[in-house]
Amino acid sequence: MNSKAEKPCDWRSKCPLNIALELVGDRWTLLILRDLLIKQFSSFKQFQESGEGIATNVLTDRLKKLVECGIIASERSAEDARVVTYRPTERGLDLLPVIIEMIIWADRYEETAAPPKIMRRLLNDREGFIRDVRSRLERQA
Amino acid sequence: MNSKAEKPCDWRSKCPLNIALELVGDRWTLLILRDLLIKQFSSFKQFQESGEGIATNVLTDRLKKLVECGIIASERSAEDARVVTYRPTERGLDLLPVIIEMIIWADRYEETAAPPKIMRRLLNDREGFIRDVRSRLERQA
Repeated sequence: MNSKAEKPCDWRSKCPLNIALELVGDRWTLLILRDLLIKQFSSFKQFQESGEGIATNVLTDRLKKLVECGIIASERSAEDARVVTYRPTERGLDLLPVIIEMIIWADRYEETAAPPKIMRRLLNDREGFIRDVRSRLERQA
Repeated sequence: MNSKAEKPCDWRSKCPLNIALELVGDRWTLLILRDLLIKQFSSFKQFQESGEGIATNVLTDRLKKLVECGIIASERSAEDARVVTYRPTERGLDLLPVIIEMIIWADRYEETAAPPKIMRRLLNDREGFIRDVRSRLERQA
């Protein structure tokens, strides 16, 4: 589960922050992960209608890249082979602490739409929140 | 110190993660914060030579935006008025947990150049690490 990448990649630098940003440092990737991890979305259509107005081509590109990097996995629906669904991998799930820290930071300094109850949970029981997300995903799998 | 923004901004959505990503969701912003917070850099030249090869115009643009958002502050050097130095504000300092979680995530899954001693500290004494960065910055101010 925590095994390192097998082949070295062509990173601009091997600073871990740089590597993280080469993988998820853009305007949209972590929103897609939010949709998968917190909103429990799994389809292209759900991501597209999620509220920030991501362009179709950008969403297609990001999903492809995330699958290639092993951050999410895609599968054809058992009921309808035309339907592809997405789920976070272990590596994707491990981005939840990054997402939580960004949420806490933004809510500290800006007026956000975050429900106060969720914010209290994130501030006081981060580990419990992460555990809940994990078990929900395991039940879905 | 924790006061919310006075005027509402034109965010794509008020989801706190979205707001964080509109502010710092790009390839370079958090690397500049890393340089300020962890490497103790403060000049344009230092950021430019920091190892990831940021383009001059991108760096200029990011620094301007970060000052406008109140994430960093700029000042003219007392010795040489042509020299501008930058320092993180409280809001910028509060991005350190985001940076730490990204570092931990990348180092868990990729071969990075992070010194094992630093990684152990981040994993076992995150709060102490943050406290040290904060007091170093306060001493510099």
